[in-house]
Amino acid sequence: MENRFDLNLYLVTDAPEKCRLGLLETVEAAIDGGVTIVQYRSENPNAGTCYSEALQLADFLRSRKIPFIVNNRADLALAVNADGVHVGQKDLPVEAVRRLIGKEKILGLSVSDLNEMEAAKTAPVDYLGIGPVFPTATKADAAPALGAENFAKLSAQSPFPVVAIGGINVERARVLRQGVPGVGIAVVSAICGAENPRLAAANFLCE
Amino acid sequence: MENRFDLNLYLVTDAPEKCRLGLLETVEAAIDGGVTIVQYRSENPNAGTCYSEALQLADFLRSRKIPFIVNNRADLALAVNADGVHVGQKDLPVEAVRRLIGKEKILGLSVSDLNEMEAAKTAPVDYLGIGPVFPTATKADAAPALGAENFAKLSAQSPFPVVAIGGINVERARVLRQGVPGVGIAVVSAICGAENPRLAAANFLCE
Repeated sequence: MENRFDLNLYLVTDAPEKCRLGLLETVEAAIDGGVTIVQYRSENPNAGTCYSEALQLADFLRSRKIPFIVNNRADLALAVNADGVHVGQKDLPVEAVRRLIGKEKILGLSVSDLNEMEAAKTAPVDYLGIGPVFPTATKADAAPALGAENFAKLSAQSPFPVVAIGGINVERARVLRQGVPGVGIAVVSAICGAENPRLAAANFLCE
Repeated sequence: MENRFDLNLYLVTDAPEKCRLGLLETVEAAIDGGVTIVQYRSENPNAGTCYSEALQLADFLRSRKIPFIVNNRADLALAVNADGVHVGQKDLPVEAVRRLIGKEKILGLSVSDLNEMEAAKTAPVDYLGIGPVFPTATKADAAPALGAENFAKLSAQSPFPVVAIGGINVERARVLRQGVPGVGIAVVSAICGAENPRLAAANFLCE
């Protein structure tokens, strides 16, 4: 695919046991609700299971023309022919990942403070995920929450499109978008854990 | 490198905190003692740390012309230009890994019972690791130990070179080699945990 993507409403998958529906059903519903890009993130150490899950999502999202990103593992991303990879500060170096996936695929990097932002400015990436903006229970090893104001300051320094992540609900998304026009909103539990993921996603898009 | 390797004494790295020496020092000493091939295996979830460790080992082993295999993550193997990848039954499918790494790199697969052996017979691999032969404390999720007799039966069915793994010490290695001439011996703690890894490795090669 071409290296074009819309970060507006960025779904990051939660562990299947934290989803009310199955993983694929959750993603389907979220897409129907308006999600613009999907990242598969799993802490399951069984890479075979991750492969099956990611392959299913990749096929579905390709049919819906929604970009599909795989967290952390570039090998998994390449094996299922995903559209990109997202790495954190403790994952393989972005430069190494860029060499592995080539220049056409989307590459995202997580940033949680000014030092990381400084280093990220020259990184071979397509977007930055900045957070956690608010406290989150989804990611065990998350850094301290930035708050909306620090998020806005960090975002202002980014030479790349930015997506906000961490504890974001509909109200908070509205506040963030007022502070940083055009910012993407990444959501995990507020969609995956919802009884109706389609409606949960759609609510993020209401003015 | 050419797809040639000697499984005779196969070192699998243990967690750095379980090595008496540093990781690189352990591997250096083990090579001096006669280890013929090295696999980097780490359960550290911090892939950035794994990258640093693997890169250091890759550079050293290249200088010593010893094949270097990376466990589980094909992306890490490619990023450090290792000579191959070793996957378990719960890792990415071997076919997917073979596509990622190309046909020149070495690909190994773990097998622990007859069903897995049956499936492995047509797998695009270069060798099989069979085990655990004896009870092991190194790998938390290891299957039940096969014992020397079942190991010999499984080995006899392999169309590929075989390396025995799991709880192997010098005495047991001797027994295994008597039962299965030419078998490779994989060792983790008996070398990594030794006060003198060079001597520990050399002892595996004494008749």
